[in-house]
Amino acid sequence: MNFTNLDRTDAYRKLKDEYSAGTERLLLPDILSEERITTYSIAAGGGLTYNYAAKQVDDSVLNILSDLAAETGCIEKYRALAAGERMNTGEDRRVLHHLTRGELIGPVSEADSNLGAFYREQQQRIAEFSRRVRSGEITGSTGKSFSTVVQIGIGGSDLGPRALYLALKNWCRTELGPPQLAARFISNVDPDDAEEVLHSLDLERTLFILVSKSGTTQETLTNRTLVTEMMRSSGIPGLDPERHFVAVTSQTSPLAKSPGFLDSFFIDDYIGGRYSSTSAVGGVVLSLAFGPKIFERLLAGAHEADKAAMEKDFHCNAALTDALIGVWERNICGFPVSAILPYSQGLHRFPAHLQQLDMESNGKQVNRDGEPLGYSTGPVIFGEPGTNGQHSFYQLLHQGTDIVPLQFIGFIRSQTGYDTEYEGSTSQQKLKANLTAQIVAFAAGKENSNLNKNFPGGRPSSLIYADQLTPEALGALLAHFENKVMFQGFIWNINSFDQEGVQLGKILTNQVLGAPEKRGALLNAYARLLKL
Amino acid sequence: MNFTNLDRTDAYRKLKDEYSAGTERLLLPDILSEERITTYSIAAGGGLTYNYAAKQVDDSVLNILSDLAAETGCIEKYRALAAGERMNTGEDRRVLHHLTRGELIGPVSEADSNLGAFYREQQQRIAEFSRRVRSGEITGSTGKSFSTVVQIGIGGSDLGPRALYLALKNWCRTELGPPQLAARFISNVDPDDAEEVLHSLDLERTLFILVSKSGTTQETLTNRTLVTEMMRSSGIPGLDPERHFVAVTSQTSPLAKSPGFLDSFFIDDYIGGRYSSTSAVGGVVLSLAFGPKIFERLLAGAHEADKAAMEKDFHCNAALTDALIGVWERNICGFPVSAILPYSQGLHRFPAHLQQLDMESNGKQVNRDGEPLGYSTGPVIFGEPGTNGQHSFYQLLHQGTDIVPLQFIGFIRSQTGYDTEYEGSTSQQKLKANLTAQIVAFAAGKENSNLNKNFPGGRPSSLIYADQLTPEALGALLAHFENKVMFQGFIWNINSFDQEGVQLGKILTNQVLGAPEKRGALLNAYARLLKL
Repeated sequence: MNFTNLDRTDAYRKLKDEYSAGTERLLLPDILSEERITTYSIAAGGGLTYNYAAKQVDDSVLNILSDLAAETGCIEKYRALAAGERMNTGEDRRVLHHLTRGELIGPVSEADSNLGAFYREQQQRIAEFSRRVRSGEITGSTGKSFSTVVQIGIGGSDLGPRALYLALKNWCRTELGPPQLAARFISNVDPDDAEEVLHSLDLERTLFILVSKSGTTQETLTNRTLVTEMMRSSGIPGLDPERHFVAVTSQTSPLAKSPGFLDSFFIDDYIGGRYSSTSAVGGVVLSLAFGPKIFERLLAGAHEADKAAMEKDFHCNAALTDALIGVWERNICGFPVSAILPYSQGLHRFPAHLQQLDMESNGKQVNRDGEPLGYSTGPVIFGEPGTNGQHSFYQLLHQGTDIVPLQFIGFIRSQTGYDTEYEGSTSQQKLKANLTAQIVAFAAGKENSNLNKNFPGGRPSSLIYADQLTPEALGALLAHFENKVMFQGFIWNINSFDQEGVQLGKILTNQVLGAPEKRGALLNAYARLLKL
Repeated sequence: MNFTNLDRTDAYRKLKDEYSAGTERLLLPDILSEERITTYSIAAGGGLTYNYAAKQVDDSVLNILSDLAAETGCIEKYRALAAGERMNTGEDRRVLHHLTRGELIGPVSEADSNLGAFYREQQQRIAEFSRRVRSGEITGSTGKSFSTVVQIGIGGSDLGPRALYLALKNWCRTELGPPQLAARFISNVDPDDAEEVLHSLDLERTLFILVSKSGTTQETLTNRTLVTEMMRSSGIPGLDPERHFVAVTSQTSPLAKSPGFLDSFFIDDYIGGRYSSTSAVGGVVLSLAFGPKIFERLLAGAHEADKAAMEKDFHCNAALTDALIGVWERNICGFPVSAILPYSQGLHRFPAHLQQLDMESNGKQVNRDGEPLGYSTGPVIFGEPGTNGQHSFYQLLHQGTDIVPLQFIGFIRSQTGYDTEYEGSTSQQKLKANLTAQIVAFAAGKENSNLNKNFPGGRPSSLIYADQLTPEALGALLAHFENKVMFQGFIWNINSFDQEGVQLGKILTNQVLGAPEKRGALLNAYARLLKL
């Protein structure tokens, strides 16, 4: 495989030239057309369609982007990654989250063991455990069935599983009916987080899932202690914390062998935290809450999107096109931020997950060999659901001095089906009408001689849409963005799978918590302000 | 008053020169010192302290920023605004949100009426109404007392009140005990939003607050219909929606005279949506949930911060210093984004409110006279609570290719007091240790010959902190940011109080919802994709 920095590729130079020459040609208010809206569209798997009609590209730019994909070996590297090559160079690890939803290339083996079989075995164990909990066969220590599961984890053990749970809970409630277990999440080391979740729970009927791959995450272990102490001090006769906890961790972690768990489910070092939603990290909580079949459907949707991203023809590969247009916007157009705007309340925490996925993966300043880069990598990602955002930060997106590329997400049907007509249209129609209107308003703008009411347009967006936010569509959506981020990492020639940037904070935190004389002057001075 | 564009001020040119000359002098890893941490600190009112030791400024830069504050007449304009001048030029309106928490300059009158007295009167009516609801004197239509209030509103009628409610609910529960009413929020026109809130409610014991200043907000009126229909179809004998709704609107709106409300509370055109949390828009829901005294304490904290922001000496004015350093970072250093990082789970939706406050106020490309600007205005604002963000997007903040200025918020004590010791420290100590460590890690960095593990530092941050997140501290925090945004608007010479950028979307939405033949080709093409 050929690992070349972006700025040493031929295609990059051609893109720079194309941009300089194309300023007039690429004006979005001029080029957005009915024909483009029909043709600039790619199936992304799982019932998703990616539409990029309102992006500031034309066929000429797209052809060079296709060359860039080939020159940087995007598909070749994805195949190598899926086949088990150690693409996480810094940590010398394989990158196998795709394998949690199915084989793409063939089996991946290590020593005598088939790693895909290991993930499948864990999923089967989770499914079986979930069925026994949901049927009431496994009960709490006082003999009562479980009604709530609480995930204790942070970062990748929190954001992805939480976003997926919130995205499906209303769909499952209305489509499947009871029994659905409620899920709650404790993440922050701030004790108010755990207290808020715990004070309203029936501890006898609550099952806690402790999630830490390393088994050493400070926040998570601290919250375990908080929960255990609250159970011990509850005064409920017979309440035994050990029968209310399961663990999700790696087989080599201190937790794997530690007593105090009803059961344990395993991941390994080849599943990065932010890519772990389709492993046991997301699997246990989602299978317990909604039943294992729903989780399987989510995996199936993700696997479809993974397969779609294998397509060699750039123009038929949604994740690859999305990735390349993102590089065009970041490195050629110079836009430092991108917004995720789901027109679906169920996805209200999905942008927070993508924020981690993207910024933690590609917020890097060295290439995969540790050499400094002379170009920008991952952008800042933020977002809130529409239409809410329209009444908030869209003012800046429409009329601010910077251009922010947008990623809209929409669905033809709502999740719950509940609706009403008001002034001639239903709520779901209004939601879709707003989405339609925003895409066109951002791209085409509208001139006004009063400049305060002028809309310059030229603000690029894409639209990913599906019929309904089902488990399959959600899985595909998750995988689409994972694959997009992966491809961008290949193009930037960085390692998207480590996160050395989190280490210094951990070291300094331990210094602050240690002996005051070892803190050093700066830490000490801030610690004094906070009476620490 | 002198309204000059930023790039025509003397101070702006001096700042540009200072930046070019000071590149070496202003290296944050070199200048951050114990002494600065002690002295670069300003009381901000309401028990808040603003510390800017880790900002990339020194006394020389600060003195020019002080000149800029004087040259752009920041305090003079604030005084004029507080005295009732029509500073919202585009809409020819006064800007009176400060007056909802107390007089700063003196009474503001219009025709025969005292506007401060009007706001006070509304607050007294709200207080009285809240007491009657909370005592059970006012009941639902079936005679049961109210246990839940649901705010129906969007944008400024949602984000601020929701953030404040979430920030205080655990504090009120543990400090005051019952009776606290639960509050819920319906904002999105997506029908799944209302359905999710409504399906779990006891409608007989629920009071809805319909909030729309204009009385014409599409999402809010649609959701009113959804709620009303759900009540009518509930089959509960005697359930009368009209006795479960109050309105918050302006006296001139269609809602003000419309039947169907138990009572109505009023604001006026001088309170902008994103500045309305301390008016009836936030007052009704917070007074019902926590009691009117808590809301009064929040107003008192905000008023203190408002008074602190009147201070003429730049070096003793936290909101003004914060604003000016923000302009330095945006226009001189060229940073396009800023992150809000509260180390308090109670503030988990506060960044979403500040995102609206800042981006909708200052995301403008023309000055207050409608002339195009040659410099950047409001940045993109995003944020999540710490320590959660540390396990998410901090990777990019530490090691990404762009620098993002940070605004940390912290508290000495937690809200609920519940805590435990684990490995020698409490959760609250760990939370504060992480905050301390992050500020120093971002500013000072740490060299490593392995560039993948290298931390360049030089990433500026400020810290606002208080003893505890109480109603007073929260009110002051809210007002601090409002005043910061206001001062930045003065410096950029823009109107921070209108939002013309939301209009085009509304017009196009109505086109999409109208006759298909009038949609035009682009809207029609997107509408077809979404089966609209």
